Amino acid sequence: MKEIGKRAKNASRQLARAKTDEKNRVLSLIADELIAQCDRILRENVKDVEAATVAGLSPALIDRLTLNESRLNGVAADVKRVASLPDPIGETFDHTTLPNGLKLYKQRVPLGVLGVIYEARPNVTIDAASLAIKTGNAAILRGGSETLNTNRALIQVAHHALESNQLPVTAIQFIDDPDRARVAELLALHDYVDVIIPRGGAALHQFCRDNSRITVITGGIGICHLFVDDSADLEKAVEVIHNAKTQRPTVCNALDVVLVHRAVAANFLPRVVARLAADGVTFRVHESAAAFVAHSSAASAGEKDFDTEWLSLVLSLKVVDDLDEAIDHIAQHSTGHSDGILTRDDDRANRFIAEVDSAAVYVNASTRFTDGGEFGLGAEVAVSTQRLHARGPMGLRELTTYKWVGVGEYHVRK
Amino acid sequence: MKEIGKRAKNASRQLARAKTDEKNRVLSLIADELIAQCDRILRENVKDVEAATVAGLSPALIDRLTLNESRLNGVAADVKRVASLPDPIGETFDHTTLPNGLKLYKQRVPLGVLGVIYEARPNVTIDAASLAIKTGNAAILRGGSETLNTNRALIQVAHHALESNQLPVTAIQFIDDPDRARVAELLALHDYVDVIIPRGGAALHQFCRDNSRITVITGGIGICHLFVDDSADLEKAVEVIHNAKTQRPTVCNALDVVLVHRAVAANFLPRVVARLAADGVTFRVHESAAAFVAHSSAASAGEKDFDTEWLSLVLSLKVVDDLDEAIDHIAQHSTGHSDGILTRDDDRANRFIAEVDSAAVYVNASTRFTDGGEFGLGAEVAVSTQRLHARGPMGLRELTTYKWVGVGEYHVRK
Repeated sequence: MKEIGKRAKNASRQLARAKTDEKNRVLSLIADELIAQCDRILRENVKDVEAATVAGLSPALIDRLTLNESRLNGVAADVKRVASLPDPIGETFDHTTLPNGLKLYKQRVPLGVLGVIYEARPNVTIDAASLAIKTGNAAILRGGSETLNTNRALIQVAHHALESNQLPVTAIQFIDDPDRARVAELLALHDYVDVIIPRGGAALHQFCRDNSRITVITGGIGICHLFVDDSADLEKAVEVIHNAKTQRPTVCNALDVVLVHRAVAANFLPRVVARLAADGVTFRVHESAAAFVAHSSAASAGEKDFDTEWLSLVLSLKVVDDLDEAIDHIAQHSTGHSDGILTRDDDRANRFIAEVDSAAVYVNASTRFTDGGEFGLGAEVAVSTQRLHARGPMGLRELTTYKWVGVGEYHVRK
Repeated sequence: MKEIGKRAKNASRQLARAKTDEKNRVLSLIADELIAQCDRILRENVKDVEAATVAGLSPALIDRLTLNESRLNGVAADVKRVASLPDPIGETFDHTTLPNGLKLYKQRVPLGVLGVIYEARPNVTIDAASLAIKTGNAAILRGGSETLNTNRALIQVAHHALESNQLPVTAIQFIDDPDRARVAELLALHDYVDVIIPRGGAALHQFCRDNSRITVITGGIGICHLFVDDSADLEKAVEVIHNAKTQRPTVCNALDVVLVHRAVAANFLPRVVARLAADGVTFRVHESAAAFVAHSSAASAGEKDFDTEWLSLVLSLKVVDDLDEAIDHIAQHSTGHSDGILTRDDDRANRFIAEVDSAAVYVNASTRFTDGGEFGLGAEVAVSTQRLHARGPMGLRELTTYKWVGVGEYHVRK
């Protein structure tokens, strides 16, 4: 593993110098070859799917690791899109000339070596490789053991594209050993790896943090709240809640908890329950809201139900006395991902923006917008819920750092 | 210690909402009280100095922990300067309106809770407190045991200033227990502390990294290089090297290694040795340079002499064949702090800028410029040599993060 780290570090120096055109040519070739080699890749994927079926993996998991022509075309299209995005590397900013005449600016450079640890979905292999290449970073990929055959085929495509453009194949290395000990070894490569990006559940994030000195990009876990103020347009508020809960319930920016101002609870809660229950949503109802919800889909909530990311058609409901109680509840229970207020009161909106400390804070909008694509970043590496380096949706720029450049005329410090 | 963490987290929420005026009033009062209470503070400092003398601490260390009226005035002036700087908190940037009409921007917010671990110099207590207050961060301070009495007196000043402005004294907590076990406990407060800032030597940084899940701002250790290209103005190059080595040799941006292009070595090296030896510099000479340096102050260098941050009037010298060898040497031996090229060749300057991956890269300038004050940041928290979050001199802005704010009209995601 140490050799893998060293090779990655060396490759990162070469990739950092690659021109935008070169990197885009690699990405185009990857996209083309994914389509050209579709049959071969799908044959390898069938092996993984069969093994997963024999091993008795859940249908949901098997679905996640299954590729087909349409999904592979989607992956190829994503790579083309990354190729079409502006290259952040080399960009200069914060130009200034000091009083002594020294010219100073910052220049965007790659982070160095990314360690990406992920689970079933094989599209992450190409996704991570293409984002790394575009941003001039080397990457060490550790995919799930249940997609080893698929990942090998995909990595071949990436390596072929690098080689064809005279770039080192060691820029994208894949840990081709299902032994879990390799993960711990990857996490120990602090001399070579600059950042660890886990793409998986809370347990994986926790494991990475506990076992590495390397900075870990934590995120993707959202217990998301909407607070319905008594000044809100209640009809529109029902639709925003419906969207945030049901448009794609399995993702991190889907809604988990609705807090309703006491003054409108009796009017609002029955409407929201009726509208969402019709689409299969069930409810966990705090005692404060119990009097207003008498629906067959509703059950009494325990306190844990306000600390759960549902990832399904379940919604927790609570009545609060005012904005203060809503803000306090969010401070106590939110994972700092996406939280919003529905209101017509500007002062309350501004207090909510100022006092709710989440990666994304909304006024009169669905929590579902927290996404690199929606935010116009073009690509998304992760949604960070940590505070340092980057917060919220991370695009290409967030896979970079900067150096300071000082240009003088034999300047000396007085 | 967990209680300290909780109190800090709670205080950070209050401080994050403090207005610029409030924060500046706290800082002004701290500055005023440092001067008003000079006698009391210096009496406490005398206790520490006496104990340090009895304990047989080195004169250098005793000097670092000693306060006098002039030094205390300097600390107060620094606090006033921080008060005068623009408040980064609340600043909004990256405004955009998405095609669907959702207004989106980023807003700068505090990091949360800073853990600052430092050694002898008691001025860090006030320095860290004032930077934290200005940026709306709470701080937990852990100073050296040899300055406990002084730090207690200084913390009283900070607490009085917070209280007088109705801000929680728990915003700035001091670990008033010299037991080293408290440091490890502070490093374990990942539920409450957002970043650890060690201010001390390499061993302290290493200890923090090894013992914490919290992000540690690593920096302040510089093995700094200047490469003298054969196109350089040699006369001016001697002066830049003289400045970088001798202007303040004990700090991290002082020069450690000079690499000289072979074509000018015979001409240049004797000149640089003569000029610097006159000011007390001694040399560690690589075998490649031995033929050109025959001075009583020069000794043969071992390989370790190119991996040492001198912090004193010692300079390592080596001859290289060309720019490539210089860049390779720097890649292998630099700590990524500050490295520069002296040249009249623009192409080589640009290659050096592009390929040397240090926090600060210079063309025709002294490495001594890498400093928050010199760079116009107004204050300096640390000089980061890590890659994530911030690189190089860190000012107030680097003690902040951002949140995304989305303002809609009951927007839903399609």
